[in-house]
Amino acid sequence: MNRLNVGLIGFGTVGSGVIKFLHERRNYIKNKFNTEFSVKKVCDLYIKEQKSPLLRGIARTTNFHDVINDPEIDVVIELIGGMHPAYEIVLGALKNKKHVITANKELLANEGKKLFRAALRNNRDIYFETSVGAGIPLIKSITEGLAGNKFNGLYGIINGTSNFILSEMAKSNCSFKYALQEAQKRGFAESNPTLDINGMDPAHKLAILVFLAFGKFVPVKNIFVEGIENISHADIEHAQSLQLVIKLLAIAKRVHNELEVRVHPTLIPKDHPLASVGGVFNAIFLNADPLGDVLLYGQGAGQMAAASGVVSDLINLAARHNAGSPVRVADLSKEISAIKLRKMDEIETKFYIRFMAIDKPGVLSKISGILGKYGISIASVTQKMRKRSSAVPVIILTHHAREKMLRLALEKITKLSIIKDYPVAIRMEKL
Amino acid sequence: MNRLNVGLIGFGTVGSGVIKFLHERRNYIKNKFNTEFSVKKVCDLYIKEQKSPLLRGIARTTNFHDVINDPEIDVVIELIGGMHPAYEIVLGALKNKKHVITANKELLANEGKKLFRAALRNNRDIYFETSVGAGIPLIKSITEGLAGNKFNGLYGIINGTSNFILSEMAKSNCSFKYALQEAQKRGFAESNPTLDINGMDPAHKLAILVFLAFGKFVPVKNIFVEGIENISHADIEHAQSLQLVIKLLAIAKRVHNELEVRVHPTLIPKDHPLASVGGVFNAIFLNADPLGDVLLYGQGAGQMAAASGVVSDLINLAARHNAGSPVRVADLSKEISAIKLRKMDEIETKFYIRFMAIDKPGVLSKISGILGKYGISIASVTQKMRKRSSAVPVIILTHHAREKMLRLALEKITKLSIIKDYPVAIRMEKL
Repeated sequence: MNRLNVGLIGFGTVGSGVIKFLHERRNYIKNKFNTEFSVKKVCDLYIKEQKSPLLRGIARTTNFHDVINDPEIDVVIELIGGMHPAYEIVLGALKNKKHVITANKELLANEGKKLFRAALRNNRDIYFETSVGAGIPLIKSITEGLAGNKFNGLYGIINGTSNFILSEMAKSNCSFKYALQEAQKRGFAESNPTLDINGMDPAHKLAILVFLAFGKFVPVKNIFVEGIENISHADIEHAQSLQLVIKLLAIAKRVHNELEVRVHPTLIPKDHPLASVGGVFNAIFLNADPLGDVLLYGQGAGQMAAASGVVSDLINLAARHNAGSPVRVADLSKEISAIKLRKMDEIETKFYIRFMAIDKPGVLSKISGILGKYGISIASVTQKMRKRSSAVPVIILTHHAREKMLRLALEKITKLSIIKDYPVAIRMEKL
Repeated sequence: MNRLNVGLIGFGTVGSGVIKFLHERRNYIKNKFNTEFSVKKVCDLYIKEQKSPLLRGIARTTNFHDVINDPEIDVVIELIGGMHPAYEIVLGALKNKKHVITANKELLANEGKKLFRAALRNNRDIYFETSVGAGIPLIKSITEGLAGNKFNGLYGIINGTSNFILSEMAKSNCSFKYALQEAQKRGFAESNPTLDINGMDPAHKLAILVFLAFGKFVPVKNIFVEGIENISHADIEHAQSLQLVIKLLAIAKRVHNELEVRVHPTLIPKDHPLASVGGVFNAIFLNADPLGDVLLYGQGAGQMAAASGVVSDLINLAARHNAGSPVRVADLSKEISAIKLRKMDEIETKFYIRFMAIDKPGVLSKISGILGKYGISIASVTQKMRKRSSAVPVIILTHHAREKMLRLALEKITKLSIIKDYPVAIRMEKL
């Protein structure tokens, strides 16, 4: 029987899920994987007040150094999130010749390259399945399951909170604010949900997927990010009547020898598989050459879904460790792609645009005239109601247009006296 | 740079795809995985006549012993299929201390336990990602990605040929025979497609998934198997009008502490994700505890989809081999589950039944009377047309009924003079 001693830093929802999982499946894991995991020490700022029976027999500390400096510990699990002290914990653990498991997307998106190098230098490994899509075996599929394939693109729903909010707005005919409260009530959103709804959480995850799939570290600040804060119920309804659905997508793809990397609300056809991904579920399409399109779908958030990813990491890490040699299939710190990031201004998509305009003759001619001047051609126009007194929504679907041209055209149109309020523009993706 | 010498046995569609893939991605693989794969020898009965430029510089033989006895070869790739001499090849290669990669579902379903034991004894490994779902990383997800999870069930479409035929029959309104010819014309079906359409191919694959997910070797002869040969276009149409779709599903699940393992045409709701899986695509749902439902979807057949699985296996195997120690995450030869196989007679599902009956008063009362006597209750009845002179289809959907009771009831009903032709019964699955 092999034995691995574990130190856990962060005893929140996921941390306690991990201990629960290891406890409940102890015999199964021993029997099947010939390995026993022993949680030696748990660190948390509030660990002293914890009365959980899961902690019985486990040493407690509020100081992470007690964990990363403990010579008996083989693996450190970091589950506190954020940049600091997570960075110091992971780096310190590696330097002390411990393997690391982390679910920290922000940390890896920003410091992944440095941390993978530190792991390599110290002949230790970082496992991070849970950082994207919780327990869905996405990281493993990209790095190992599809090894050798060339990735031409990937896109998907990788933020459960915003997907829950958009699904709820569509299903229950409610406002963004109400849907967010509902998500918080059900435990699907943090008390501070900013990173989820402003798109930064999926941007962190996308940065990780991009360096795994395309061999390029893209700084998060260079990723174009738009959240769902400004999606109104009206736009969801208009989309529905056009047989479209709004989803917050993370997208990366090769176009003309450059790489597009972006996160934004996206209109997709109602019958596309991603359109029916509801609630906190995640789904990611990988376009691999020569395999073709592969879809992975599953629960992307929640205590036990995340614990599943962490425990799988532990078992996989142990198998390699027990064999006497920690080994990654590939050196993740090595950039193998010289591909350039495509400037957002250059990107071309179709657009859904909603103007609030005074309902009088000549409005459309003015709008379409300006769009035409910027080379943007119109696929369809819908005006929902007729109301002489106030502004009415005018919905325009465009053909492919360059991002920059659209931005310039909208600035011009917004200045027209017939236009009330800022126009809403949502990209449409051909998937 | 690590180096692995490869011997390939079977230079058909997939075999030549593997060499093509390795050739095209040589530099990428060297750079990313620090490993060079060198195909030393290719064995095929018809290799002498081959003029493929892919074979340049590679030794050729028609005798597999030349490959498995070659001391320079580290890995043997077996792609000939069938039981013999595939069994002798794999066993011989392991005994000669070579790793094995195989796509052979029939071999593993029947002799997996023996072969995994031989691998363990010889400290070598068998990789077989391609045996189910071609390059979709399904084997890796079950054995490694979801390690530690308990599987409560799995079900899916794992035979591309029969899925293509059923999709084609529904889409093009054509007969089984025509759809099969179409599949053969497009290269989606073997010239002898028996194992695909009679359900044995998915049964072999299901046996593999079952020992990976449930830790139990179920002999293929104990798996209940029904193919798609008797699915008529009429039933596909009736199903459509009931908002249902017919798919050939492989199903394994725990019910009352027993394991159900079966392959048969299955009616599923039109809006279920599997209903929209068309053509040669495969899709598998895994119900894992604690992760929940996970879906993997992708191309389950075809030259390069299969080559992708083989090359991924090569890369993953090399990573472990290069680290000085071949190691599986789990010992696959070990049965870890004492669970009993559930008898087909005991299984309960809903049923779609089509009778061809003389259209006269009292018919329904006779049929429903017999069903009732066997404890089978009716959810709905539809009679499609009225035609005094000849038999008309009567479609009955039942509530949950035991397989044995249904069989006995159908035997009784078939004997009624008002019934023309054998009734058609298709199981409906609550997914």
